[in-house]
Amino acid sequence: MSDEASLLAANAAYYRAFVAADLDGMAAIWGDDEVCCIHPGWPPIFGREQVLASYRDILRNPMQEPVLRRSERALICGSEGRVVCMEMVGQSALVATNGFRLVDGAWRLVHHQASPLMVQSEPPPPPPRSLH
Amino acid sequence: MSDEASLLAANAAYYRAFVAADLDGMAAIWGDDEVCCIHPGWPPIFGREQVLASYRDILRNPMQEPVLRRSERALICGSEGRVVCMEMVGQSALVATNGFRLVDGAWRLVHHQASPLMVQSEPPPPPPRSLH
Repeated sequence: MSDEASLLAANAAYYRAFVAADLDGMAAIWGDDEVCCIHPGWPPIFGREQVLASYRDILRNPMQEPVLRRSERALICGSEGRVVCMEMVGQSALVATNGFRLVDGAWRLVHHQASPLMVQSEPPPPPPRSLH
Repeated sequence: MSDEASLLAANAAYYRAFVAADLDGMAAIWGDDEVCCIHPGWPPIFGREQVLASYRDILRNPMQEPVLRRSERALICGSEGRVVCMEMVGQSALVATNGFRLVDGAWRLVHHQASPLMVQSEPPPPPPRSLH
């Protein structure tokens, strides 16, 4: 599997764990050191234990809507990889960065930031052409 | 200078260039490859030229308020460094990630994402104690 394919697979595993509310899966994906997570609107959370605690609360929340990813793009430089993608949460669109580090051949998540996308509304369609 | 000090100096140079509307300074800070910038509310921008073009528009905008940084925290793993900090833009607070890569001994910016911080309002103070 190419670096890009394995990176995208790691990114997919993150969203799979999220949708399945699989905290063990989430724990396997997140790295050990120098990790940071910025949930939408939240202040940054530093440290593996603190980050996983935040996911425990989010994944246990019965009101949490599923997060679907779209339009992934991978950026890789050596052992540092990022996936930038859209997250669809209910009717909201977010832009997410998932930063990974290659550790012993596996991409581990070390950074997550999701921020709301402000979509400009489409201009109104032109009025229908009058035949008169 | 330690890795952390040089990383924080590179982060400071980014905000100095922003406040001074110094596009040449901005061009010197941004890296060449695998760069991505996510301005608040915007879709992601990929590629050095496209990212610098976005800064040209922002820095030329006379309505652009200065961006002041606060509460920086550096995370370093080998040649990958991140600074997570608050950005104060007018009355708004943002959380920013600035991702750097060490290239020929210099930290070059390869990733920027800023997202609004939703500050919970303080609970209202208790009513004054009645003396009656």
